[in-house]
Amino acid sequence: MSKDFSERFRIKPGARVRLSDRDPADHAAFADKKAAHEQSEKDGAAINELQDRLYAEGKRALLVVLQGIDTAGKDGTIRHVFNQTGPIGVSVTAFRRPNEEELAHDYLWRAHLACPRRGTIGIFNRSHYESVLVERVRQLAPADAIEARYEQINAFEKLLTGNGTTILKFMLHISKKEQKERLQARLEERKHMWKFNPGDLDDRKLWDKFQEAYALVVTRCSTAWAPWHIIPADHKWARNAAIARIVRAKLEEMNPKYPKPKWKAEDFKVV
Amino acid sequence: MSKDFSERFRIKPGARVRLSDRDPADHAAFADKKAAHEQSEKDGAAINELQDRLYAEGKRALLVVLQGIDTAGKDGTIRHVFNQTGPIGVSVTAFRRPNEEELAHDYLWRAHLACPRRGTIGIFNRSHYESVLVERVRQLAPADAIEARYEQINAFEKLLTGNGTTILKFMLHISKKEQKERLQARLEERKHMWKFNPGDLDDRKLWDKFQEAYALVVTRCSTAWAPWHIIPADHKWARNAAIARIVRAKLEEMNPKYPKPKWKAEDFKVV
Repeated sequence: MSKDFSERFRIKPGARVRLSDRDPADHAAFADKKAAHEQSEKDGAAINELQDRLYAEGKRALLVVLQGIDTAGKDGTIRHVFNQTGPIGVSVTAFRRPNEEELAHDYLWRAHLACPRRGTIGIFNRSHYESVLVERVRQLAPADAIEARYEQINAFEKLLTGNGTTILKFMLHISKKEQKERLQARLEERKHMWKFNPGDLDDRKLWDKFQEAYALVVTRCSTAWAPWHIIPADHKWARNAAIARIVRAKLEEMNPKYPKPKWKAEDFKVV
Repeated sequence: MSKDFSERFRIKPGARVRLSDRDPADHAAFADKKAAHEQSEKDGAAINELQDRLYAEGKRALLVVLQGIDTAGKDGTIRHVFNQTGPIGVSVTAFRRPNEEELAHDYLWRAHLACPRRGTIGIFNRSHYESVLVERVRQLAPADAIEARYEQINAFEKLLTGNGTTILKFMLHISKKEQKERLQARLEERKHMWKFNPGDLDDRKLWDKFQEAYALVVTRCSTAWAPWHIIPADHKWARNAAIARIVRAKLEEMNPKYPKPKWKAEDFKVV
């Protein structure tokens, strides 16, 4: 069941993606909000337990990449899917505008530095994909350099997966109308105002170009080893529940185990 | 109320501490397990909400230092006090045996590197205090170098608090008998075996020396700007509830605020 569920959102390697074919308001197979909540509570608890096993085993890591335009709900996703797991063994890295030190290295350097250590789950809130999203749309690097990056990113991710890090990538797909409402809320609601950045409106003007850049990313970088999933994200409950399902299914497939001790209990006496 | 509660466990600067005066099985002012659980659930929810405000404000940080001998419950504390807060805006750093790079620097270098960025809560699972605990007991550095560290640590922490980081330090205080039971459980229970390290038994043989080293730490390094608290930790529920109370009270005292926007909503139109 869970596997089929993941497949519904996973982009097959080589598939040509058109975002307009995908409904951002899709319920992600959940009957309604209540059903989605109930399932994601259960999945959150299971993820917590699986994470403990992953940590105890200490051999492998899980990297969760979250991408989406402003207001798509990256923070909210982390909060809902991983809150039960808590901060031990989970690290969140927000990829902001690169600083001087980061710019002094290649664009994958900071991503590599932020990769989760064995036994842990790492979450990228934005990621190395910014180098083919905002950098492409705003032409922050030469066109041929950007063209070369898709293949470099695939190779980088193959390196990671070949060395014990499982990768799940999620694009949070919202409609232009939904973004409008969420930006409007940031302008009006006291608790959300701090999230509003006037620059978001400039990005919104480039909506079509960003959509194109996202379509290219999922078309070129959904690989057998590091698949992209496009998650309908107009309904927060559908988004959270869908991602929780997929993360849980992947961790169950990884099936981390409490390690067998190398010692025998009878050799020790606690005095 | 909350403030009085904190004071019960806080070590006054200059007070000479004898750990044997303090009962590790104290209920920390909670009537029973149920009352403690109920309170810590509430406090955990409040910490989550305060953390969101801290993050939004983005100006200050909270550093929580957890120290205690093996099995004292550092992981369990993090899990129970901060799970509701989740991984966004909370970073946990476990201080393991220093690696080559860390040893190539002074002993505070890696602690500084791990300090929380503004807007976040940083939790040290063990900390820079290992340099006056295990390093003292096992004589891993010259005696006069170790003697100099208490003052250096106080100055380091003053630097942090003078620059926007509030510090709370907790020593988890368990009895020798309780440690015995917990070590025994690690030898016997499948889910806990991975936590057992034969070296823990060697440390246990040095119980008195470690207690002495801890007493020195709280005597010399409980300062007005970065107080130590000694938390009775034989009862996990009392330990978790006490720390949740104190963390919540401190965050309420810090009173982070959602920042007022520098823009006027009417200047923007989302189209």
